Amino acid sequence: MAYFNDIAPIKYEGTKTKNMFAFRHYNPEEVVAGKTMEEQLHFALAFWHTITMDGADPFGSATMERPWDLEGGSELDRAHRRVDAFFEIAEKLGVKYYCFHDIDIAPTGNSLKEFYANLDEITDHLLEKQKETGIKLLWNTANMFSNPRYMNGVSTSNRAEVFAYGAAQVKKGLELSKKLGGENYVFWGGREGYESLLNTDMGLEMDHMAKFFHLAIDYAKSINHLPIFLIELKPKEPMTHQYDFDAATALAFLQKYDLDKYFKLNIETNHAWLAGHTFEHELNTARTFGALGSIDANQGNYLLGWDTDEFPTLVIDITLQGWILMHVRLKVQQPSLKTNSCLISLKNVIVHTRRQKLVNLSKMEQQLLKVLLLMLLSMGMTSNLILTT
Amino acid sequence: MAYFNDIAPIKYEGTKTKNMFAFRHYNPEEVVAGKTMEEQLHFALAFWHTITMDGADPFGSATMERPWDLEGGSELDRAHRRVDAFFEIAEKLGVKYYCFHDIDIAPTGNSLKEFYANLDEITDHLLEKQKETGIKLLWNTANMFSNPRYMNGVSTSNRAEVFAYGAAQVKKGLELSKKLGGENYVFWGGREGYESLLNTDMGLEMDHMAKFFHLAIDYAKSINHLPIFLIELKPKEPMTHQYDFDAATALAFLQKYDLDKYFKLNIETNHAWLAGHTFEHELNTARTFGALGSIDANQGNYLLGWDTDEFPTLVIDITLQGWILMHVRLKVQQPSLKTNSCLISLKNVIVHTRRQKLVNLSKMEQQLLKVLLLMLLSMGMTSNLILTT
Amino acid sequence: MAYFNDIAPIKYEGTKTKNMFAFRHYNPEEVVAGKTMEEQLHFALAFWHTITMDGADPFGSATMERPWDLEGGSELDRAHRRVDAFFEIAEKLGVKYYCFHDIDIAPTGNSLKEFYANLDEITDHLLEKQKETGIKLLWNTANMFSNPRYMNGVSTSNRAEVFAYGAAQVKKGLELSKKLGGENYVFWGGREGYESLLNTDMGLEMDHMAKFFHLAIDYAKSINHLPIFLIELKPKEPMTHQYDFDAATALAFLQKYDLDKYFKLNIETNHAWLAGHTFEHELNTARTFGALGSIDANQGNYLLGWDTDEFPTLVIDITLQGWILMHVRLKVQQPSLKTNSCLISLKNVIVHTRRQKLVNLSKMEQQLLKVLLLMLLSMGMTSNLILTT
Amino acid sequence: MAYFNDIAPIKYEGTKTKNMFAFRHYNPEEVVAGKTMEEQLHFALAFWHTITMDGADPFGSATMERPWDLEGGSELDRAHRRVDAFFEIAEKLGVKYYCFHDIDIAPTGNSLKEFYANLDEITDHLLEKQKETGIKLLWNTANMFSNPRYMNGVSTSNRAEVFAYGAAQVKKGLELSKKLGGENYVFWGGREGYESLLNTDMGLEMDHMAKFFHLAIDYAKSINHLPIFLIELKPKEPMTHQYDFDAATALAFLQKYDLDKYFKLNIETNHAWLAGHTFEHELNTARTFGALGSIDANQGNYLLGWDTDEFPTLVIDITLQGWILMHVRLKVQQPSLKTNSCLISLKNVIVHTRRQKLVNLSKMEQQLLKVLLLMLLSMGMTSNLILTT
Repeated sequence: MAYFNDIAPIKYEGTKTKNMFAFRHYNPEEVVAGKTMEEQLHFALAFWHTITMDGADPFGSATMERPWDLEGGSELDRAHRRVDAFFEIAEKLGVKYYCFHDIDIAPTGNSLKEFYANLDEITDHLLEKQKETGIKLLWNTANMFSNPRYMNGVSTSNRAEVFAYGAAQVKKGLELSKKLGGENYVFWGGREGYESLLNTDMGLEMDHMAKFFHLAIDYAKSINHLPIFLIELKPKEPMTHQYDFDAATALAFLQKYDLDKYFKLNIETNHAWLAGHTFEHELNTARTFGALGSIDANQGNYLLGWDTDEFPTLVIDITLQGWILMHVRLKVQQPSLKTNSCLISLKNVIVHTRRQKLVNLSKMEQQLLKVLLLMLLSMGMTSNLILTT
Repeated sequence: MAYFNDIAPIKYEGTKTKNMFAFRHYNPEEVVAGKTMEEQLHFALAFWHTITMDGADPFGSATMERPWDLEGGSELDRAHRRVDAFFEIAEKLGVKYYCFHDIDIAPTGNSLKEFYANLDEITDHLLEKQKETGIKLLWNTANMFSNPRYMNGVSTSNRAEVFAYGAAQVKKGLELSKKLGGENYVFWGGREGYESLLNTDMGLEMDHMAKFFHLAIDYAKSINHLPIFLIELKPKEPMTHQYDFDAATALAFLQKYDLDKYFKLNIETNHAWLAGHTFEHELNTARTFGALGSIDANQGNYLLGWDTDEFPTLVIDITLQGWILMHVRLKVQQPSLKTNSCLISLKNVIVHTRRQKLVNLSKMEQQLLKVLLLMLLSMGMTSNLILTT
Repeated sequence: MAYFNDIAPIKYEGTKTKNMFAFRHYNPEEVVAGKTMEEQLHFALAFWHTITMDGADPFGSATMERPWDLEGGSELDRAHRRVDAFFEIAEKLGVKYYCFHDIDIAPTGNSLKEFYANLDEITDHLLEKQKETGIKLLWNTANMFSNPRYMNGVSTSNRAEVFAYGAAQVKKGLELSKKLGGENYVFWGGREGYESLLNTDMGLEMDHMAKFFHLAIDYAKSINHLPIFLIELKPKEPMTHQYDFDAATALAFLQKYDLDKYFKLNIETNHAWLAGHTFEHELNTARTFGALGSIDANQGNYLLGWDTDEFPTLVIDITLQGWILMHVRLKVQQPSLKTNSCLISLKNVIVHTRRQKLVNLSKMEQQLLKVLLLMLLSMGMTSNLILTT
Repeated sequence: MAYFNDIAPIKYEGTKTKNMFAFRHYNPEEVVAGKTMEEQLHFALAFWHTITMDGADPFGSATMERPWDLEGGSELDRAHRRVDAFFEIAEKLGVKYYCFHDIDIAPTGNSLKEFYANLDEITDHLLEKQKETGIKLLWNTANMFSNPRYMNGVSTSNRAEVFAYGAAQVKKGLELSKKLGGENYVFWGGREGYESLLNTDMGLEMDHMAKFFHLAIDYAKSINHLPIFLIELKPKEPMTHQYDFDAATALAFLQKYDLDKYFKLNIETNHAWLAGHTFEHELNTARTFGALGSIDANQGNYLLGWDTDEFPTLVIDITLQGWILMHVRLKVQQPSLKTNSCLISLKNVIVHTRRQKLVNLSKMEQQLLKVLLLMLLSMGMTSNLILTT
């Protein structure tokens, strides 16, 4: 079943085009700093922002009805339609990578066993699509924050069976990563933190979190599939304080528990802002410790204290961030941006949707997209602020 | 159907009691500054925080299963059970007031007509309970923020039919206020604001909001029931900017559109903090303009940028707030105060004292501290932070 | 005495120029939206940021030695040298307006009388320079925050003699405004606010502040020189809370005390950010109430809680701000940006100074300057995001 | 010369006293949790907050004239008078420790040599006073932030001679620490950070900072005096970002450069708040990494983004902080606390308790509350917020 028949694949048509469904700046074949833009910018599409998001917020129910959710049948039927719609968008966008949480792709069912079976069925479909399109899995992760069982944490929970359930989800996640050829595996500790220190032994909980990660490393080794483990940093929300507060906090933890050899950091702009840092600061800190793994390039609102995941429009911020990345002289693995893979989570960047009154891409937005491309140019770049319009 | 048979009505048992279900300081009959504590502190219980709240947050589904929601039957059956449970709690607490949003008490059904009918049926039940218990309606309000229709505002929406639908909800709300003897009627403009100024004409939207309020005033006059109209202030969340940002902003709006004679302000601690003010500042501003209407006495977390609605535990904050209220010399109407799950209504709290540099605790301030303890107490409060003078 | 002999007047040389001392975008004669850039953008130079600033901060002493301060002689000699240096810079920049605090231009001496005499002498020199260069006084103001006497406010001080001393400074300021043909007169209430509400009667202090302003209006009328009175908004710093917190707060105050006919608002970006608003929000609020007076176009740092007064580099912010201004349809006085004068405080914008390592103006900064020009286009502009590069 | 003849030494007089110059709760001889209050709370007095502070702020000049500064003579004469006044206050308060920056106690003169000579003369006087009163040096430090030479950092400066000058100040500081028997030596990197990443190589600067610290360790060993090295954390102000942002950031740095064996952390409440943490969080983080060194127990204002160094009055915060400290099981060295005008040194405060959900106040917590009152008391404290259990 196709959902976007009326939209042709998005091509580069240069800055003069009036076609809303065209790249004005991103030209996959154009060589920038010795590599094509496609080699420089490994865009990856986020399954959840693209397909499952319904527009609800803490004060209101869903505001979006997605076509693939309106055709009845079982939850598994819907899951299959979602995979088709996702790869249709990815292909039309020309994106080469994607990422997902386990519960994004498959219904959780009524037991872990049922959830495992649903995951097996849907990942078969994903594998088929990967082969068909050439699109690769950048990373997968376990959603260990939406189910009420994780209310007080996963590895830092005060209940052993919750620690175990989380470990089971990660175990399955690593197996699926191997099955789908995932290059990284992400841990986002949205519930690993505290609401109040009055009922929290931070040292004990950190010991447990380290134990959880070491178990994951051991299991990955045991199945001969050790992807780069990425910690996604976020200081707060939903918890009052989250143990992966910022780059330095995660690095202090990783060093203390001899985990730094296996883990790098996944840095998101809006999360950096919530921790009181600029995005370029967090990139710089990770780079300084040789721990820059992946980037969720979005934007928040400095005046709001919660995560808004907006499309990046602050030209100077992006340029600064690009500037940092251009000086990426990573000592350890010499991972250029290409090999260690980086994720730009592009939320419906190009596809025009009926829902909102899209202001025509003006001159400013054209320059923005151009600058956005510069953001992730690889190692060895020398010139300082390069802005080609 | 009773839900709390095993809990006796909560009585005052003094500071030495070990009974978790007893007041240590709140003694309804004790006279403080010329009135009993009950007369001084008009606690009101919030229907939604007490009965419908299920513990969900933006990153996770519900974590609470309330007994009155687990007995099947129709939505109206559940609504009736909720009314019974609510009044059972209120009576056991000895609370004399309550407040609700329309969708808290009755199912919205599939049409405005059906919603009106459900509201009529449930408010009959509420009226019966009010007569049975003597508990009075402090205020009611229309929830004009959860339904997707209100995604871009109510009176400031860019769609006329949304303006009309909101007006219909307020019209019904005023009729129910008359039916139930409501003393105030609240407007919380959670969606009256903007996400971006790029698609917003703030002046036009304010004109519409003023028109909406004038319509409400005219209708209230037409049915001979003009309660005190209260604007609940909040600077943001869910919108990027909300037009009732803080006390001064609402006062500038009310004065500009000749609404200040009909409106007072409902001030909540956590909302004041999100606007970059202390609670006592907002109380002071409202008092200075003769517009102090009602208080939602809760607490947030200064380090978090979203609304957490916590029980007030910061003794010095509460004392400061009380100190401000002691200076409340209200001319026109009697303000009332609602603690976060109940509103404290402080009518003519204490006499205005001259402006002097207070060092030693005067007799007046000792009584203030007594009154202020109340703001910390509710059922089962075992606060270990007891402040005795 | 000349200080910048080696720097020729700054001319527009187009975007290709390599001359650091040239405008690449600001072409005074170029017509934009029906007026020349010069008519559209009434740049004014701030005496204090340009001449007296010495680079000290709360943790360290001065880091700049200005040539005009190093030639000995009396304080008055230095004051005269400063006037010469200032007009030399202003002329070379092609700026047509300037503004000052009283203590910027003349030594305060040992008594009010001596201060008055010094002001008379120096303003003779200023008048001579104004006639010589055609540069006009946009606004002057009294510095009523640096002297320890103003520690607890001016009109809101708890000492009558401080209220009087402040009034004397404003009286003299209005006379100088008349002498120099000032178009506006500014009030910045840096000390009008409180550290703690425990020793503050906000209502009483606001009454006194209103009285102070009415006295100023009466005096201005009595000497037949009633410039536009501007309130410069700032929420905090140095005080914990300042009574001109943001546009809405000032408007609520002005309306309450019937001052809105005489006062408009002077809005600074960094101060808006400190109040939890965007600059464009404050411009929009002022415009909506017909109270947009003047603009201090700078930038702060969203992650810092104090005033940093940085040069505006956030292209999208400036564009948004320009967008707001282009829709200035002021009802009351129909003051377009031209008549009611606007101040862009340009701090050493162009003149290259030895002190800092100036990064070459890249393509990005060229676009910035172009966009900065758009920021203040006057009424009637229709196109949305106009960015000409 | 005595300055406080009319004030008798401050004694414990119990809660009923009306004497403004008496302790109501702090009874040095009273045993709490197995030790006297004096042994539990090693108050230390800060030379600069107590003697040299003059009340200036970024917008206004000094507002205080201290008697010891008004008696003329040379700068060295004034320095000697300051030492006498300081020890007079410390003795009357019964404080047993003190701390200072080098430039607090001695004039810097016109050369490093002259500064060294002045330091030698004044520290002879300090040593004499230490012997006379029994008051000991908790820590000393070098002020490497006020002089313009440190504008761009000390060890992270872009000028080698500034690195060297700073090292010379620390060398002298370690010698004075030995001479005066200092137990700790503090490094506050107020200028070690950046204003913009555009002209900053964070990795290189951190390498230099680590080198600087290793040089200090080597020198301390060479003179047989290796006090506990303390890093005072602060996230910003004066710099945009400071490299000792918070506990985790400092720990990541110390671990990366093998410095964690020699350094512990000095944690100040207001600085923790500026980093977006609670004070108890930072104490907990330091304790978890075995790096809790010393505490500056003051308070800021959550709504202000700069350091206000206020006396701690938030009872619940202090109790939380105390609760954390009760769990302080320090292996290596003893931490000490300095209240804002004096540091509270809490050595092995109380016994570690297992992790349980505490509701009723145990015996231990009642004693905690007793100890925590001390943090509110100093001479003349007339706190109307007295918490008696």
